[in-house]
Amino acid sequence: MAKEKRTAIEPTREQDYPEWYQQVIKAADLAENSPVRGCMVIKPWGYSLWENMQAGLDKMFKDTGHTNAYFPLFIPVSYLEKEAEHVEGFAKECAVVTHSRLELGSDGRLVPASPLEEPLIVRPTSETIIGEMYSRWVQSYRDLPVLINQWANVVRWEMRTRLFLRTAEFLWQEGHTAHATKGEAEEETLKMLRVYETFAQDFMAMPVVCGRKTEGEKFPGAVDTYCIEAMMQDRKALQAGTSHFLGQNFSKASNIKYLSEAGTQEYAWTTSWGVSTRLIGGMVMTHSDDDGLVLPPRLAPLHVVVLPVIHKDCERSNVLEYCAKLKSKIESASYCGVPVRVSVDSRDLRGGEKVWSWIKKGVPLRVEVGPRDIASGSLFVARRDTGEKKSMPCAEFIENIGALLQSIQENLFLRAKKYRDENTVEMRSKEDFYAYFTPKNAKKPEIHGGFAVANYDGSAEVEDALRADLRVTVRCIPLDGGEPDGNCIFTGRPAKYRAIFAKSY
Amino acid sequence: MAKEKRTAIEPTREQDYPEWYQQVIKAADLAENSPVRGCMVIKPWGYSLWENMQAGLDKMFKDTGHTNAYFPLFIPVSYLEKEAEHVEGFAKECAVVTHSRLELGSDGRLVPASPLEEPLIVRPTSETIIGEMYSRWVQSYRDLPVLINQWANVVRWEMRTRLFLRTAEFLWQEGHTAHATKGEAEEETLKMLRVYETFAQDFMAMPVVCGRKTEGEKFPGAVDTYCIEAMMQDRKALQAGTSHFLGQNFSKASNIKYLSEAGTQEYAWTTSWGVSTRLIGGMVMTHSDDDGLVLPPRLAPLHVVVLPVIHKDCERSNVLEYCAKLKSKIESASYCGVPVRVSVDSRDLRGGEKVWSWIKKGVPLRVEVGPRDIASGSLFVARRDTGEKKSMPCAEFIENIGALLQSIQENLFLRAKKYRDENTVEMRSKEDFYAYFTPKNAKKPEIHGGFAVANYDGSAEVEDALRADLRVTVRCIPLDGGEPDGNCIFTGRPAKYRAIFAKSY
Repeated sequence: MAKEKRTAIEPTREQDYPEWYQQVIKAADLAENSPVRGCMVIKPWGYSLWENMQAGLDKMFKDTGHTNAYFPLFIPVSYLEKEAEHVEGFAKECAVVTHSRLELGSDGRLVPASPLEEPLIVRPTSETIIGEMYSRWVQSYRDLPVLINQWANVVRWEMRTRLFLRTAEFLWQEGHTAHATKGEAEEETLKMLRVYETFAQDFMAMPVVCGRKTEGEKFPGAVDTYCIEAMMQDRKALQAGTSHFLGQNFSKASNIKYLSEAGTQEYAWTTSWGVSTRLIGGMVMTHSDDDGLVLPPRLAPLHVVVLPVIHKDCERSNVLEYCAKLKSKIESASYCGVPVRVSVDSRDLRGGEKVWSWIKKGVPLRVEVGPRDIASGSLFVARRDTGEKKSMPCAEFIENIGALLQSIQENLFLRAKKYRDENTVEMRSKEDFYAYFTPKNAKKPEIHGGFAVANYDGSAEVEDALRADLRVTVRCIPLDGGEPDGNCIFTGRPAKYRAIFAKSY
Repeated sequence: MAKEKRTAIEPTREQDYPEWYQQVIKAADLAENSPVRGCMVIKPWGYSLWENMQAGLDKMFKDTGHTNAYFPLFIPVSYLEKEAEHVEGFAKECAVVTHSRLELGSDGRLVPASPLEEPLIVRPTSETIIGEMYSRWVQSYRDLPVLINQWANVVRWEMRTRLFLRTAEFLWQEGHTAHATKGEAEEETLKMLRVYETFAQDFMAMPVVCGRKTEGEKFPGAVDTYCIEAMMQDRKALQAGTSHFLGQNFSKASNIKYLSEAGTQEYAWTTSWGVSTRLIGGMVMTHSDDDGLVLPPRLAPLHVVVLPVIHKDCERSNVLEYCAKLKSKIESASYCGVPVRVSVDSRDLRGGEKVWSWIKKGVPLRVEVGPRDIASGSLFVARRDTGEKKSMPCAEFIENIGALLQSIQENLFLRAKKYRDENTVEMRSKEDFYAYFTPKNAKKPEIHGGFAVANYDGSAEVEDALRADLRVTVRCIPLDGGEPDGNCIFTGRPAKYRAIFAKSY
């Protein structure tokens, strides 16, 4: 029998990418489905990632002048009705609260009672309720800009859900700003897009394309929607964050008016921007491998796990004591301005099982220490990203730990960027384009295509055809993508854009 | 005309305490009512307080071995039904989700559509849904303890709401733990109660009594409810946090079973504990005065505000430049392990208006700097807590800023403790007790009573009578309150407890 390469995750990415994704999450204990339809439970390891994301983003929001606030979970249905496109976008899938009490029914079961005068929906996004508050707060140009962010849960009643990527309830942040001029609001929209880009690249080690959405793909009620798009390892695109220039649509719907310096009444210009727990799904799919989760050090709940190697009972106390001291040395080192996060795993488990549990959890560095290492003053160090393992002097490890973590962070980014760039192809004809997105191997219908860059006339008819024929959409018109250099490859008409097309989550 | 003392807040505490409370919140811009019934908007200054509370509590939870996770917002009605007392407590006031879509009705308005098979309620607390998850996660004694906390929003459909103190939606944390033994769960319950006590006293400068609730006042479904109770300036009690020993009630309802070391199947023992944005209301009512909010430095969004004093335009750039440098010096100082939080208010406002705006916001230290101060190297420093103002050398201020803040923190605590102790009275007869809680001045029905300590037989009949006659309840049986030293003052029967009685929020 030929020796097979064994992997901790089954199936592998190659065998069944969607199932691999679920198994990576399960093996890392990040999250699981709850008995409540479409709602997930984010488990401690997954929630820690979110806390680290929140900390990074929150600091960037505050550094750009924003403060946090909190607005109601519920939105009266009449508010949703104020903006026509907005209703269209959100009324189809929302949780509707109709009663304020339960009482015992005739069959002894609880039934809804005390109907509300006006039904409420659980916020799918908060433009309308926040707009209402801003209309009360903003009177004069002196009250502008309003620069507020909210960390919150939101609900969209999705029919097909997938952990992190698409769930009925998810956690997110939504920035909502109001400005005196169109120019300022546009500047804000792009500034926050670039904040997301920086966060994705520097913290998540996830390369992204910054771009603008087409009419068909923009946020319901927005004038312009900008996005960051990332490529997953099945070469599909993931929209990882959006920033909307709302023009005066919502300020007119909510009556956000101000007295200008010139003494005239003007409508404010507003923006909104958000990222969600979806980012965790993106991070999983960008870096993980067939052995499980791979975490970028800047977001890893633990940077280092120390694994005591104990063969005989008499060694135990010595090794554990040494590991405890090692832990304090490690946490006195720092990485990116925070103390290195380290834990000693002294559980009574078989060595192999213990090592694999941390591999599957994606901890960037594993350190094994046994009596012989203690005697020689060395450590056995393993990198999660490359799998590289080597023995090194303890002092050298402590001294280089920040550099080592940074090298992992950079390697992950470069590896993902290389993968994306290799799978981004310039398309010169409709035929090539269709061939690119058509599976060559019926057994692996998921793995094909990538990002296709093409000259495009901007028409909705092309978008509709691509969606119907190939399930491909325009992901964005890249901000740094240059001008079209030929006619539209689909229609032959003059091209308006050089756009990126892909299948997507 | 006699010179009247002017205050920034009208009415004063003496004149109308409940209205004073609303006005303090308004003047400090902490929060306001939203158009959604019973739901408040927490504005940036109020939300900053909550963020500082969260940071302090979160660290204490993690230091005691807990991790955060996130569970669904929605709870199926059938889950609520699992624990009889729990249903009783929460079914009467909850938001019920019955539909998953809105569609256009015949009158052109949106109406609920797609009814759910089983209605969901928006969580009023999460014992049942978290219990369901724990029943899946816990198989063996090795899986215990489970020590998890959740930061979340919850909804209880209160009819009469008051900002922070009682709102339909509020923010909180809820710890939920499961243990192998009764003893461990009881220890956890009391450990977290003491964490709350420490937080209230050290961060909020709010003295609290730790105690146990009577049968009639405990959490629906708990075996024992412990609480921290604080005294507000109208001498009413505020329940500021609770920690519940749930016994095996919820583990039986949710089937949280484990295989013990001895090989038997056992039900786990669980606890839950929580504090909420109500704490902000408690902090407002503990420290604020007739000039507005007074903040304990450990939670203040800003420790210091620098107010440039500019009389002539030609002074402006010099003074502002000096203030910017002063700001960096101040923020290089630290208080309780964090850099001092400071801002320069260079708004173009009248001096008096500007000073008062920061008084009303409760910032612990105000520093005024004008050309003469710059020339003499001094600053004009005002303390919010005592109103004390004095000129001091700039270098001396910078050097002592941490000590100054700590002295404010301690002064607030001691002042509040003195007030509470002065208004805590030992009662030896039912007559004295009734007199104590009966208003002497019909014009100020709110201001009377306080904490009454009395020997009590523990009977429900006494509780019912006191609630009906005086609107007084047993706040708690203090943990450190000693044993009864006589018979029950209400019934003459042997006393079981020395309890604290009060009117309450």
